[in-house]
Amino acid sequence: MTKVAVVLSGCGVFDGSEIHEAVSVLTHLSRHGARVQCFAPDTQLDEIDHLAQKPTGHKRSVLVESARIARGDIKPLDQLKSKQFDAVVFPGGFGAAKNLCDFATKGPDCTVNPQVKRVINEFHEEGKPIALCCIAPVIAAKVLGKASGGLGCAVTIGSDKATASAIAKMGSTNIDHDVTAAHCDDDNNIITTPAYMCDAKIHEVYEGIGRMIEQTLERVASGAGVAK
Amino acid sequence: MTKVAVVLSGCGVFDGSEIHEAVSVLTHLSRHGARVQCFAPDTQLDEIDHLAQKPTGHKRSVLVESARIARGDIKPLDQLKSKQFDAVVFPGGFGAAKNLCDFATKGPDCTVNPQVKRVINEFHEEGKPIALCCIAPVIAAKVLGKASGGLGCAVTIGSDKATASAIAKMGSTNIDHDVTAAHCDDDNNIITTPAYMCDAKIHEVYEGIGRMIEQTLERVASGAGVAK
Repeated sequence: MTKVAVVLSGCGVFDGSEIHEAVSVLTHLSRHGARVQCFAPDTQLDEIDHLAQKPTGHKRSVLVESARIARGDIKPLDQLKSKQFDAVVFPGGFGAAKNLCDFATKGPDCTVNPQVKRVINEFHEEGKPIALCCIAPVIAAKVLGKASGGLGCAVTIGSDKATASAIAKMGSTNIDHDVTAAHCDDDNNIITTPAYMCDAKIHEVYEGIGRMIEQTLERVASGAGVAK
Repeated sequence: MTKVAVVLSGCGVFDGSEIHEAVSVLTHLSRHGARVQCFAPDTQLDEIDHLAQKPTGHKRSVLVESARIARGDIKPLDQLKSKQFDAVVFPGGFGAAKNLCDFATKGPDCTVNPQVKRVINEFHEEGKPIALCCIAPVIAAKVLGKASGGLGCAVTIGSDKATASAIAKMGSTNIDHDVTAAHCDDDNNIITTPAYMCDAKIHEVYEGIGRMIEQTLERVASGAGVAK
């Protein structure tokens, strides 16, 4: 059975994992018979009131809030070891750009949470697929980008010019795809789809994430990889 | 275009709407081209830490937390008028049994939030479909049950004997269906599926809710109803 790790970043589009994207990831993985374990960093997030769409000034735990999406079945990210999984998936939402890295405030000069960086590097070095959607691809673009000493990678973040420009500055490339398409960077085994980076309907996001998960599991099944 | 109201009860299986169920409802409604508006009661919920699976002693707002699932696009339940919609859907989760009624603690002697009761009665009186999944069907079983002066209704809550017995005491009937099936009580225009009342996988819950939404929209399209 294929074993897939899913990395969450809270629970809610404005301060955590985008809920529709996270559920789409989990549903498609289940549909294909993958065994899933969720993880999240054991750090704090700046709580956003999703009704008023304003900061509350309070903090919440990324791990505890992510547990809402995982129905309690979640582990701290430092327990995620790539040797125990065939692939890793990062749903989007502002949490990916605020809690997994600080791209939301620093753009191309962002730093990535050390555990997230370790996970990306481990899976990449072992040639195992890394799937990311919505804004989450900026994490791979940073960690593996030429500006960080890597070879760069090709990802989808939709047609947003500012984000595409930031990805170029990090030494990676944006592929402008529609919400229902996914892109596989064969050289890096990185599979991405723009999801809510597009002005899209929820069933279109579900469909695009379905393509991303299909391609990810096909890469696992075929043994394709970039192992060094 | 078919207009559907979705009533949420928080954000997270243990104190709010079950997230996978709510997202499944929204995805299937979108896939069928329905126009959706989310609503939630503007009341408090007892916060459950979903990692420790224990009460925190703190409160959260049902409406504000539900806004996480709705990406901010949600209104207070007292603004939901049946005349503006073709159908109403209630996802499950403990929030349905704690925040929309107090079935979780009172069983068949529960009382239903007055706005929830009004909404159920309004849609029922106008003969418009009411869809509920997981534990949420107990709300219809109570409001329309013989013990409340109604004629009773037939709903699905899976094979849990205690819940089925409570439904019987309220003067309604449980139909024991599998997670991937939905049941339509033609007399009452009530469509239900057991979802996570069954020990099910997320893609099975998604599939069963798909059937529930299909039947609900078919009832709208056919003009079938129980209008009095």
